[in-house]
Amino acid sequence: MLKVGVVGATGYAGEEVIKILINHKDVKIAELQAVIDKEEPISSIFPGFKGKIDLVCKKPDPDGMARNVDLVFLGLPHKVSMELAPVFLKAGKAVIDLSADYRLQPDVYKVWYGVEHKDKDNLPKAVYGLPELYHDAIKSAKLIANPGCYPTSVILGIAPMLKEKAISTDYIIADSKSGATGAGRKPDLALAFSEVNENLKAYKVNEHQHKPEITRILSEVAGKAIDVIFTPHLIPMNRGILSTIYLKLNKKLDTKAVVEIYKKFYKGKPFVRISDEGKLPQTKDVVLTNYCDIGLKVTGDTVIVVSCIDNLTKGAAGQAVQNMNIMCGFDETEALK
Amino acid sequence: MLKVGVVGATGYAGEEVIKILINHKDVKIAELQAVIDKEEPISSIFPGFKGKIDLVCKKPDPDGMARNVDLVFLGLPHKVSMELAPVFLKAGKAVIDLSADYRLQPDVYKVWYGVEHKDKDNLPKAVYGLPELYHDAIKSAKLIANPGCYPTSVILGIAPMLKEKAISTDYIIADSKSGATGAGRKPDLALAFSEVNENLKAYKVNEHQHKPEITRILSEVAGKAIDVIFTPHLIPMNRGILSTIYLKLNKKLDTKAVVEIYKKFYKGKPFVRISDEGKLPQTKDVVLTNYCDIGLKVTGDTVIVVSCIDNLTKGAAGQAVQNMNIMCGFDETEALK
Amino acid sequence: MLKVGVVGATGYAGEEVIKILINHKDVKIAELQAVIDKEEPISSIFPGFKGKIDLVCKKPDPDGMARNVDLVFLGLPHKVSMELAPVFLKAGKAVIDLSADYRLQPDVYKVWYGVEHKDKDNLPKAVYGLPELYHDAIKSAKLIANPGCYPTSVILGIAPMLKEKAISTDYIIADSKSGATGAGRKPDLALAFSEVNENLKAYKVNEHQHKPEITRILSEVAGKAIDVIFTPHLIPMNRGILSTIYLKLNKKLDTKAVVEIYKKFYKGKPFVRISDEGKLPQTKDVVLTNYCDIGLKVTGDTVIVVSCIDNLTKGAAGQAVQNMNIMCGFDETEALK
Amino acid sequence: MLKVGVVGATGYAGEEVIKILINHKDVKIAELQAVIDKEEPISSIFPGFKGKIDLVCKKPDPDGMARNVDLVFLGLPHKVSMELAPVFLKAGKAVIDLSADYRLQPDVYKVWYGVEHKDKDNLPKAVYGLPELYHDAIKSAKLIANPGCYPTSVILGIAPMLKEKAISTDYIIADSKSGATGAGRKPDLALAFSEVNENLKAYKVNEHQHKPEITRILSEVAGKAIDVIFTPHLIPMNRGILSTIYLKLNKKLDTKAVVEIYKKFYKGKPFVRISDEGKLPQTKDVVLTNYCDIGLKVTGDTVIVVSCIDNLTKGAAGQAVQNMNIMCGFDETEALK
Repeated sequence: MLKVGVVGATGYAGEEVIKILINHKDVKIAELQAVIDKEEPISSIFPGFKGKIDLVCKKPDPDGMARNVDLVFLGLPHKVSMELAPVFLKAGKAVIDLSADYRLQPDVYKVWYGVEHKDKDNLPKAVYGLPELYHDAIKSAKLIANPGCYPTSVILGIAPMLKEKAISTDYIIADSKSGATGAGRKPDLALAFSEVNENLKAYKVNEHQHKPEITRILSEVAGKAIDVIFTPHLIPMNRGILSTIYLKLNKKLDTKAVVEIYKKFYKGKPFVRISDEGKLPQTKDVVLTNYCDIGLKVTGDTVIVVSCIDNLTKGAAGQAVQNMNIMCGFDETEALK
Repeated sequence: MLKVGVVGATGYAGEEVIKILINHKDVKIAELQAVIDKEEPISSIFPGFKGKIDLVCKKPDPDGMARNVDLVFLGLPHKVSMELAPVFLKAGKAVIDLSADYRLQPDVYKVWYGVEHKDKDNLPKAVYGLPELYHDAIKSAKLIANPGCYPTSVILGIAPMLKEKAISTDYIIADSKSGATGAGRKPDLALAFSEVNENLKAYKVNEHQHKPEITRILSEVAGKAIDVIFTPHLIPMNRGILSTIYLKLNKKLDTKAVVEIYKKFYKGKPFVRISDEGKLPQTKDVVLTNYCDIGLKVTGDTVIVVSCIDNLTKGAAGQAVQNMNIMCGFDETEALK
Repeated sequence: MLKVGVVGATGYAGEEVIKILINHKDVKIAELQAVIDKEEPISSIFPGFKGKIDLVCKKPDPDGMARNVDLVFLGLPHKVSMELAPVFLKAGKAVIDLSADYRLQPDVYKVWYGVEHKDKDNLPKAVYGLPELYHDAIKSAKLIANPGCYPTSVILGIAPMLKEKAISTDYIIADSKSGATGAGRKPDLALAFSEVNENLKAYKVNEHQHKPEITRILSEVAGKAIDVIFTPHLIPMNRGILSTIYLKLNKKLDTKAVVEIYKKFYKGKPFVRISDEGKLPQTKDVVLTNYCDIGLKVTGDTVIVVSCIDNLTKGAAGQAVQNMNIMCGFDETEALK
Repeated sequence: MLKVGVVGATGYAGEEVIKILINHKDVKIAELQAVIDKEEPISSIFPGFKGKIDLVCKKPDPDGMARNVDLVFLGLPHKVSMELAPVFLKAGKAVIDLSADYRLQPDVYKVWYGVEHKDKDNLPKAVYGLPELYHDAIKSAKLIANPGCYPTSVILGIAPMLKEKAISTDYIIADSKSGATGAGRKPDLALAFSEVNENLKAYKVNEHQHKPEITRILSEVAGKAIDVIFTPHLIPMNRGILSTIYLKLNKKLDTKAVVEIYKKFYKGKPFVRISDEGKLPQTKDVVLTNYCDIGLKVTGDTVIVVSCIDNLTKGAAGQAVQNMNIMCGFDETEALK
């Protein structure tokens, strides 16, 4: 049994990691930590865990955790992860970081997060944990930069066409819509029920911190620098992301042909489902699952891609466990189906 | 034109007072104040006001406001109102306080709010601003304790039967359900969208601070001390309160007879509507109005009362304006229909 | 492997039964049927099933199903079940009926459902499938009347006090609140999003068809006829029921003592969790689980019980699978934890 | 006093027209009609109207209505309006049709609605009721084709840039999101609360019947044929449309310059508000108002336009009243501010 720890156990992603791992046959949750006022059973913080897990959630003590576990999930705010990850790595433990701290090059990180990166030693060794693109590297990784929720939905929706070199790389638009858990579990007036409910807004238009992550990975896929216009929107629902992506074909393809390209690209990938021609996915079909559902429609020389995930599962905790499964040689779908 | 000021203009109740007063033909909004970081037009804080009102919302300055206005609405947290109201009263200005600070006797206040009341001089002069019960006193009041949202729905739902002496006063149950704006506009994890949405809970069961307000007024109506079991619930919607009230008849009455009692009791009251026998109200019919809709059903010796209001209108800002209309001799329904 | 069939596979309860059985290690879903326009894979009707189950959902053919399965779940509207169940029972197959058709005595059924019962032969043999009360009878049953969602939450919330003979049986009030899936999956203006969202209403006050089910079972528990005042409310959320129940003590007990009574009563029952004194459950902690969470508070001589379930799991499909597990000698919690 | 009638008084748009007209100082609601089972007061159908309007809603009788009113609002399904409008027009009454029946040329109508147009006589005389573009024509119109909700938000968001000839007309993308009332008030499983809530989907991608309306009007504005890629999405909220529009500049302009173009274009138009540079609108600021709020952001050679309306007000009933005000020489904003 692999002994795992979760730091940031009281956030939505942390809660979700625990929820998934409870049902994992090869894993034992050995330690939970979070920034909390008093140490108490995780089942007091999330009463849904009563009768399922009784572990006490402790205050942060990375050294203590490093002694007790083989692998650590970091469900922490940006800028905090890079302070803790080195402790675990130095102790020879595997780390799956759900924050953005290991997803960007140091100079880009500084531009978007406003601070110098604090762990430039480990940063180059981090593997971007999107199994559909980086499966082999994940296998031998010790440090995983688990992808952001928006990037997961957008990158999986665009990569096949880029790889196929079937689209213009000049004008890619990703119009993304996310439920409110994507913003994390915290007191914030902008996230209050009465502010989010019965409202709809775009925010951080083309300035969201997930943009450089999207362009970095898509540039790697394309083999050249690529820009994406990225508009996130906040939707009055708890979970789910739907990205509507507009691509411009550089060759003549109909919907059927494009569907084939995607089906071929994701063949054998257990968590991507491509809708048949004429059908489109919706978020409720992926919520509480690790699936990314993708639907396609060609009109003229435009491909409209609709890509759906659960932001907390495939967009965070589920993908993190999928990465762990690959790193540890478990069945890739264990606890995720 | 009556010049009015609003302190606490950036809360939900304050916003609502402004929204109503914009359409009031006898009133000019002369000054807005709130605890804010920087002074800016109220239309920057609530963009919905753009093109309707351009007044700058200032930081609290009660003396300044007292010089500029004839009447002040206080949309402030409990314990703050009683520090400001005396300034306005001393300057001869009328005050309508939407907090709980002037609704209870000093000893009860101390028990429920944990502090000594700071304005015991004015407290006895405050009139409870429920026009359906205290119309005449409101007319000549200088200080209005504007009722709480839950109490408005509960008291209006019970008063006719108490007055009629038709129910046992031993066992009155009020099971109330409220939308999330009732808790105010503030950063608070318990009020976050992802916590409130798709969830339902009871809270402060029989310990809510609105309980002593309910029992105080109902005891006045009954002419003897009365207890009420009061259970509030948080509902995933923005606005609206529905109270389901269970009363025990002490004489034989059918639904038809009870409906008649209520219709007679509220005859001529412009903001209470009694459903015909066989019909029950729902919150959507009162939301964004100043109405209290009441439906009734007798089964055996139990009367089930369903009482609906909009917590921000009849339960706060609308009722406050209704009180102002009465105090100032305006049409009671001006700006409210 | 037990071969099971689901009739009514396209309703919310049917969908949920399938979702649970997919993960059941002792069961094979052998056949799905529903009233549909054309036969197609269940994964076309519920795209979330893609990659999980590919069975074609057929039009109703009870004889055909009877040949293929060992046990049948009937997720059908009231009045339809009693026409199909006899077919399966005659063929020696076990039946778990999620409708109300086998929950009441024939005379009461006629009063509440307006028609003569059509299967009076099997009706007396039906066992009420509430495992916390009827575990032994379920074990040897061939026909289960699976409890309604409201009755599950209300009966589990009251039974311990009745059994303890600690409450007056004269005045029991159950104020229940349910999410919208409780009303089933069907086109109905009253269930339209724009009608339910941002609204709150009581309906069928003390006239809901679940009332005689509640009183029948509670009368059995008490050993004498018992009435309950039952008010259902429709809440703008998908899943979850919270019942707030008001009981009158006939002896002096404090919250601590009452909590002990409940803990003792449900000792060893895997799906009931009693909140510690001072805590109350909320629906989000039971949604998507088979738990019934119960919290208690005594005030004067009143016990306030808060009882939460997921209406589609413990209130329907989960409880149905729990019953199957008991009938078939499987682990009672298989596929449910 | 202008006497008006509403046909289709029981739909969301019809209800909204009534709600607005109740407060209109120059108008008397003289007659209400709808396809209903029995004639009853409109306040029985919409209890929110109790105490405000007591008119009985009658079954359709166009001749009867034509005798009683000066102007008719048709809140009817597509294909029905074109059967009734001629009756009123022949009787010399003004008609404001909220359906799509008079918005398209007959050949395009046939393609999108699948039937031959039945009122080709009046069709060419219909004026497209978007006051910001067709104010003068509306003034003298007898038949108004009141714009669709999506088209209102999209056309107002694009027209200024087209008029300025500042964008490429080759690649215009409108990604629109709408609340559920946009689909009308009817029993429909796809619109059920449990289907729409906690879900997000695109639908009729580039095949929505509002597309030809958008391209027709924008082509008129541009003076040449224009295509728009139009993707509608269904959002779990009652009211509001937000359209995110992507335009490609054909000259160098920054956000400030583009904001100026929009402010100039809409100068003097009472219901369009342009956000200052750096700010973007959200639906809650326009819900229950007749405003269209537009925000702008330039990034590289792309203009991102965010255009918000209330689908039932500026997107239907409010705009219809605005048109009536213009046609009848009333203050354009009467009853709308």
